Amino acid sequence: MRFAKLYDALIYDPKLHPERTHATLERFEEVLGIVLGGAAGSHIEKLRETMQGIAPRALLKPTHAEQILAYVDEAGIPTDQVDAMVTHLMYSEISTAEAIEMHEKYKIPVSRLEKDIVPVRGEGCWIMDTRGHWFLDMDSNYSATNLGMANAEIGRGLYNQAETLISMKEDRVQIARTRFLKEIDEMMPQGLDRFYWQNSGGEAVDKAIKLAKVHTQSRDVIAFKQGFHGRTHGAVSVTWNEKYRKPFGLHDEDWVHFAEFNDLDSVAQLMKETDAKIVILEVVQGEEAGNRPADPDFIKGLWETVHQNGGVIIDDEVQAGFGRTARKKGDWFACDAYGAVPDLMVIGKSFGGGYPVTAVVTTDAVSQSAEPGYDGSTFGGNPMAMTAALIAARQMRRLDVTGNVVTRAEQLRAGLNTLAQKYPFMEDVRGLGLMLAFSLGSADRVAQTQDLLREHGVKSSLSTGPYLRILPPTVLSKGEAAQFLTRLEAALDALT
Amino acid sequence: MRFAKLYDALIYDPKLHPERTHATLERFEEVLGIVLGGAAGSHIEKLRETMQGIAPRALLKPTHAEQILAYVDEAGIPTDQVDAMVTHLMYSEISTAEAIEMHEKYKIPVSRLEKDIVPVRGEGCWIMDTRGHWFLDMDSNYSATNLGMANAEIGRGLYNQAETLISMKEDRVQIARTRFLKEIDEMMPQGLDRFYWQNSGGEAVDKAIKLAKVHTQSRDVIAFKQGFHGRTHGAVSVTWNEKYRKPFGLHDEDWVHFAEFNDLDSVAQLMKETDAKIVILEVVQGEEAGNRPADPDFIKGLWETVHQNGGVIIDDEVQAGFGRTARKKGDWFACDAYGAVPDLMVIGKSFGGGYPVTAVVTTDAVSQSAEPGYDGSTFGGNPMAMTAALIAARQMRRLDVTGNVVTRAEQLRAGLNTLAQKYPFMEDVRGLGLMLAFSLGSADRVAQTQDLLREHGVKSSLSTGPYLRILPPTVLSKGEAAQFLTRLEAALDALT
Repeated sequence: MRFAKLYDALIYDPKLHPERTHATLERFEEVLGIVLGGAAGSHIEKLRETMQGIAPRALLKPTHAEQILAYVDEAGIPTDQVDAMVTHLMYSEISTAEAIEMHEKYKIPVSRLEKDIVPVRGEGCWIMDTRGHWFLDMDSNYSATNLGMANAEIGRGLYNQAETLISMKEDRVQIARTRFLKEIDEMMPQGLDRFYWQNSGGEAVDKAIKLAKVHTQSRDVIAFKQGFHGRTHGAVSVTWNEKYRKPFGLHDEDWVHFAEFNDLDSVAQLMKETDAKIVILEVVQGEEAGNRPADPDFIKGLWETVHQNGGVIIDDEVQAGFGRTARKKGDWFACDAYGAVPDLMVIGKSFGGGYPVTAVVTTDAVSQSAEPGYDGSTFGGNPMAMTAALIAARQMRRLDVTGNVVTRAEQLRAGLNTLAQKYPFMEDVRGLGLMLAFSLGSADRVAQTQDLLREHGVKSSLSTGPYLRILPPTVLSKGEAAQFLTRLEAALDALT
Repeated sequence: MRFAKLYDALIYDPKLHPERTHATLERFEEVLGIVLGGAAGSHIEKLRETMQGIAPRALLKPTHAEQILAYVDEAGIPTDQVDAMVTHLMYSEISTAEAIEMHEKYKIPVSRLEKDIVPVRGEGCWIMDTRGHWFLDMDSNYSATNLGMANAEIGRGLYNQAETLISMKEDRVQIARTRFLKEIDEMMPQGLDRFYWQNSGGEAVDKAIKLAKVHTQSRDVIAFKQGFHGRTHGAVSVTWNEKYRKPFGLHDEDWVHFAEFNDLDSVAQLMKETDAKIVILEVVQGEEAGNRPADPDFIKGLWETVHQNGGVIIDDEVQAGFGRTARKKGDWFACDAYGAVPDLMVIGKSFGGGYPVTAVVTTDAVSQSAEPGYDGSTFGGNPMAMTAALIAARQMRRLDVTGNVVTRAEQLRAGLNTLAQKYPFMEDVRGLGLMLAFSLGSADRVAQTQDLLREHGVKSSLSTGPYLRILPPTVLSKGEAAQFLTRLEAALDALT
């Protein structure tokens, strides 16, 4: 059959692509527009005549696909353009408009639906959307895809694991987890070698608090203003932003106390006023604070104060961990960059290279306070999760991401500081490693700049307040960092 | 090279099997024992002489693998036996003893490590362990692998998705989720078509409670004695067993009230005494109650009482859902079997055929009480999760699991009732669909029977109290159900 590939892109093969469905006429028309530009109009008109009675969003049937093939043939659309159509249809056989409407129809609006970019394909630090536009990724999906938005190697490992053993609860011995354990030790901070696997960052924070409560035989927790730790009852209770707690009656929990970040007196005061023996922090505060790193003296003092009081420190490294915040090669976690080892650490996001896997990691001492029955997890540390985590960890070491982060961070900081000299409203370039931010003076100006960046093909990160945040993949190249700076300059030029 | 396959099983190829590592000598010796039985002893002795100085658990190097190949050749081990060794080594290149020790060394002991079966391979309703023993699976990993422990089709979909787009946060439009939404509608109870995706059952319960609190503008919750809902701060607070709450100071939450299951007066009384407008239940109570189904009258009355009071019902279908509890073909959820639609439903476990994906599902009315900022999720509903859920849902429909559950449940119930007539201590065969249990009079006798079942090659499910629980895959065949009954009879015979 001529254009057999186009047929396969319109009518899916459940054996080769069980994740797809049949295309719609609406998507085919959209793809005509992407590939042919202005010339698509007349084709779409003629095609509609041919395909009368087919609802735009109905799944095409084989006979419809044959009609489309016949039309393409008759219209004399060149083979290279047909090939381009196939490419776009394989990434999505559904129109952008339908994708957006389906999400609006079925979503519980606990968050604002983002529809400016509908991504279909990742490649290194780049993302392509349904319309064929490419964006330089300076967000890494909140740091969950530090190794890029696509990962065939992890895909292959997951395929092998799925056809062998797709799941197993946390408390049973299995081989995928053993493989992981044989390799991870060297990446963990000294003494943190006890794992309790979970599935989301918030869930792991929730469980870390439970473990800390058991170990300290206390329930009061000191958290920090502008900290963010997640959304379960436990995790959101220690998250500063009252908007995240009040609707659920969790704004006045008697066991939670908020201290000022980078202010040791504030912590010491709360430790005196309350029975708190548990402190939770992000060493680099993320989305609520605009990537604000702790002062080294604060970390040193905090560790001393808490431990003198017989307390424990939970270090939430969900966003910072796995090389993003390296100060030197080998700093896999932000605490490494400060030379401080917490009592409990929460890891997640890029842990599995995109696969949902998180963990509480702790010392032997804290671990021994746990008893069978205290917790349990069906999916935590399942063989697929451990396979993804193993392959991701190997990639991180092979690609020397901590070394790369150090070099790229220097390059970006220098470039950002140069821009700050040019634009008076731009100041306070800060952060650690590739968890960077700079102030533009107001949240409005940040929003405008983010829109302009998108127009210049850059996806920046969720930002609140006057700081624009960037969290590029840790595999960012020198050329890509330079491109970002050039595009940022163009955006800032357009702004002023 | 002769025995090239054996070489590939000893020295892994990172391109084909990025999830593996090099084998150890200890595992090779274990595999010799599995394949050659008693004859392995002399080979192991001679091999050790040849391989002097190699630590039993060190990763073999290519030169070591060549030594092993030379030995196998020289010793004249027949090709079919070498092939069998390859099979076992490909499933695990690490010894059972090392796997167990690594888990013991690195686990936070919040649960008891299960090491009686170290699974490496699933096939339909069967599991093979590291020693090559097969077990009939009557547990489905707590109902998380209703479609079996291995799933190549989901694996293929995940591979395709991973090499395209491996992750995307909950609040961005994407194609994998759109594909899922286009197909799932017909499986959901009428009116439940708003989704908030999560990663574990406990997390989804936690978020369902948050949504219910917002919608009812209240915070008191009625849960049930012997109910189980998960382990986060929110989920464990509404879980009955005090052992799961007390260590964390969550045993005395003023917003949680426990009613008697199947006792409408108890609920009505609590609704009078408190401001509770939120009720959470499992329609079939699982692990803490021994698969106890609700009385139809109780469900009818509960729905009326709660709704008359302006309250909402959260139906936790994490273990019961996706066909396990079908009373008739098409009952995808336990509530369907009762003809009752809850206000919020929590789904999980087999939702993704083994992939960690869960959700809160609710009505348009409840959904509209949510506002952007109320929650957020990095991994919830990510493209891999949606791909797994889509393929799992298609498989469930294609295999007519609800129809199969109805037939198999009849067969098993009849068989169990016959056995109950033979063994006087066996009684009260109960449950719904393939969520079955029977009493053996004491927890001790349940434990003994589970040990005997394992000796007879059957893996039963976690059971507390005098009820032995069985939750076989929903794809259980007639022959497998018959085999279970035969093996159970043998176990009960050995018991008495």
